Amino acid sequence: MNPVEIIRKKRDKKALTKEEIQFLVDGYTKKEIPDYQFSAFLMAGFLNGLNTEETSALTHAMLYSGKVLNLSSIPGIKVDKHSTGGVGDKTSLILAPIVAAAGVPVPMISGRGLGHTGGTLDKLEAIPGFRTDLNLQQYEEVLKKHNAVLIGQTAEIAPADKLIYALRDVTATVESIPFITASIMSKKLAEGIDALVLDVKTGSGAFMRKYEDSLALAQSLMNTAKSFGKKVIAMITDMNQPLGNYIGNWLEVYESILCLQGENVKDLMEVTHALSGAMIMLGGKASSLEEGIEISKQMVKSGKAFDKFLDITKEQFGDPDYLKHPDKYPKPKFSEKIYSNSEGYINTMDNYEIGMASLELGAGRMKKEDIIDPKAGIIFYPKIGSFIKKGDLIAELFTDKDDKIEPVKNRILNSITFSNQPVEPVKLIHQILE
Amino acid sequence: MNPVEIIRKKRDKKALTKEEIQFLVDGYTKKEIPDYQFSAFLMAGFLNGLNTEETSALTHAMLYSGKVLNLSSIPGIKVDKHSTGGVGDKTSLILAPIVAAAGVPVPMISGRGLGHTGGTLDKLEAIPGFRTDLNLQQYEEVLKKHNAVLIGQTAEIAPADKLIYALRDVTATVESIPFITASIMSKKLAEGIDALVLDVKTGSGAFMRKYEDSLALAQSLMNTAKSFGKKVIAMITDMNQPLGNYIGNWLEVYESILCLQGENVKDLMEVTHALSGAMIMLGGKASSLEEGIEISKQMVKSGKAFDKFLDITKEQFGDPDYLKHPDKYPKPKFSEKIYSNSEGYINTMDNYEIGMASLELGAGRMKKEDIIDPKAGIIFYPKIGSFIKKGDLIAELFTDKDDKIEPVKNRILNSITFSNQPVEPVKLIHQILE
Repeated sequence: MNPVEIIRKKRDKKALTKEEIQFLVDGYTKKEIPDYQFSAFLMAGFLNGLNTEETSALTHAMLYSGKVLNLSSIPGIKVDKHSTGGVGDKTSLILAPIVAAAGVPVPMISGRGLGHTGGTLDKLEAIPGFRTDLNLQQYEEVLKKHNAVLIGQTAEIAPADKLIYALRDVTATVESIPFITASIMSKKLAEGIDALVLDVKTGSGAFMRKYEDSLALAQSLMNTAKSFGKKVIAMITDMNQPLGNYIGNWLEVYESILCLQGENVKDLMEVTHALSGAMIMLGGKASSLEEGIEISKQMVKSGKAFDKFLDITKEQFGDPDYLKHPDKYPKPKFSEKIYSNSEGYINTMDNYEIGMASLELGAGRMKKEDIIDPKAGIIFYPKIGSFIKKGDLIAELFTDKDDKIEPVKNRILNSITFSNQPVEPVKLIHQILE
Repeated sequence: MNPVEIIRKKRDKKALTKEEIQFLVDGYTKKEIPDYQFSAFLMAGFLNGLNTEETSALTHAMLYSGKVLNLSSIPGIKVDKHSTGGVGDKTSLILAPIVAAAGVPVPMISGRGLGHTGGTLDKLEAIPGFRTDLNLQQYEEVLKKHNAVLIGQTAEIAPADKLIYALRDVTATVESIPFITASIMSKKLAEGIDALVLDVKTGSGAFMRKYEDSLALAQSLMNTAKSFGKKVIAMITDMNQPLGNYIGNWLEVYESILCLQGENVKDLMEVTHALSGAMIMLGGKASSLEEGIEISKQMVKSGKAFDKFLDITKEQFGDPDYLKHPDKYPKPKFSEKIYSNSEGYINTMDNYEIGMASLELGAGRMKKEDIIDPKAGIIFYPKIGSFIKKGDLIAELFTDKDDKIEPVKNRILNSITFSNQPVEPVKLIHQILE
């Protein structure tokens, strides 16, 4: 096979065979096909698209560039959840212990914060001592013992994805549904899962802002999961405002503790229970989504989910004392309250801006090398549709960076628009695809 | 400026500014922008196109990556011709001396054979001693002395084109009208010309087989030439059969000698006089194309053109004795006559196949490193519309490679289709664009 002929075929809008895609990915991973040919393929694929079979073949080639775990020695239907990322999206921290407590094994390999969105690994690492760099043997052991494990991508998992993602990043070929699908699914399928719940975000704080793009991504992810024989449910959930009220790594752990201890943060827990309910159902412990949601709520109420969170934390070298006594956690140097200078119903939020504001305070990375401040972030109170009076508390900022307070304050206030007329609250779960 | 943003812009079908294109080409030439980013740009440009201004900006950036000659110290309007390449296309060898003899300076920087087509440099170098590797100072001197000079591209001329062409070749981004335009024009404009005649070939032996593609290329080339303030005429000429009867390097020099000595090889001389007539007109020595053609014919008839060919050859270290006594030239080891085994009017020829047959005999290069045999080639007699009887002589093959004779014989015979009904001869000059 000749890489130029394969590039030409995609350039001319023809579908590639499984073998041709395998040849490109293998060749690129082994450095037999140079960057410049793979990037020409990426741009041709970006512009001319990949069909369902090609996307599945790309996922397959990327998946088998590395180790694919076999968890068949662990009883039960293994289920994971994947979110496309958002602002304040801490559902993984809450639902992993819930679902594990309900008897469904949750083998979870997560990522770090990307741009304006947070990452599960960064949040977990805000817990003193918590280690996400377990090796794959430890991963299996923790899962076997506690029904859940939360680690980061190891070098053995889908190395082709790491290489291809880095190339996409510098060749303007990131925002492609087939490539995003293959990147997500090659990592998720390597975990050893039997089923997957997808949380595809939509709105101003999501990577896919437009509803039709979110829907297309959800369908592409589902088609690919199904082509590998996995059970899958996708939910398209709202990301036009932060999920819950806490944004930032420790702040999100803190809100997760509150929720696992029974506090009902309405939007956050509606989405979390829907996702965990679906996981419990796919895991064979409920016969309907409603029953799954009911079990999920019981796991919180009974305290079993919080206990599970303590167990996992301990097992992964974290100090559970901080979860039991979060007031012990170090405080940031500066905090600042933001009050409204307008009045009315909150009409829109630029949720991307809110995520970037949190990043500016130290909760995320501008550059890859930046070090995250786990204490930094924002508590953001209002929701779309809230009525706000002048002088009402809008948000609290936490940071060690004094000079960031003023610009972030303005950024937060400018991210909100008001209306004189009542505004409907947003629908949280737009669509469930099975 | 950020290369990723520029690639994204072209990916999203937006027009790039002159500065953005300059930034990409400069960066790539200086190795500040890596291959993989430039190839992503090439694929985005291939698929989304470049408009007239972008094509002109790309040409400008590639042109000024190297030396641009200033021939203003040489009196007269400097005119060159460029052909997109074909089979048996030896017009440059005949028209350069004609136009120079008519008093118009012809500064010609030519290329080598590419694929199934021959190259002027390879043909000239078939003349014993002839050197096409003069430096740019010698180039000016020969032009000043004889009104014509024929050399190859030096390293100083448009180095960006060499780099970009090599990358296009391995990323399936060759067949793009804007990129072809910039590649041709960046080299031609570096010659120091004031005016240019374009011979854009169309048909089975051309790079642009379809008429609409040939027309689009002609228009793109003209637009670019005009944007640099150059006078330009384009002719779309037929390449559905070899031009003249001789194909191969020395064979084409030989046919050129015959024509310069007054033999009227009809199709070849119709196209040659049209092109040289246009050059003489653009050079200010005729007030119409018809007058230019008349002068061109006189230059042959008077013997001045042939004398000019001898002068240029001598000046460029070639042995004019071989031009005066071509029978002195070394003979190939093998020659073979091919006779028709069919009868009828010749309906079509696969002229690409005829070009490839000549290449197989040794007249061209399969790989860049291959060495050309100047003696190898084909004399091909019939034309579309000719009536051929069984046993008529179709072609003569010349080669040192015994084992190629049988396959080439079949290739030649299979390249022709016959009709029982009379077939119109092809129109040689399809369109003239001014």
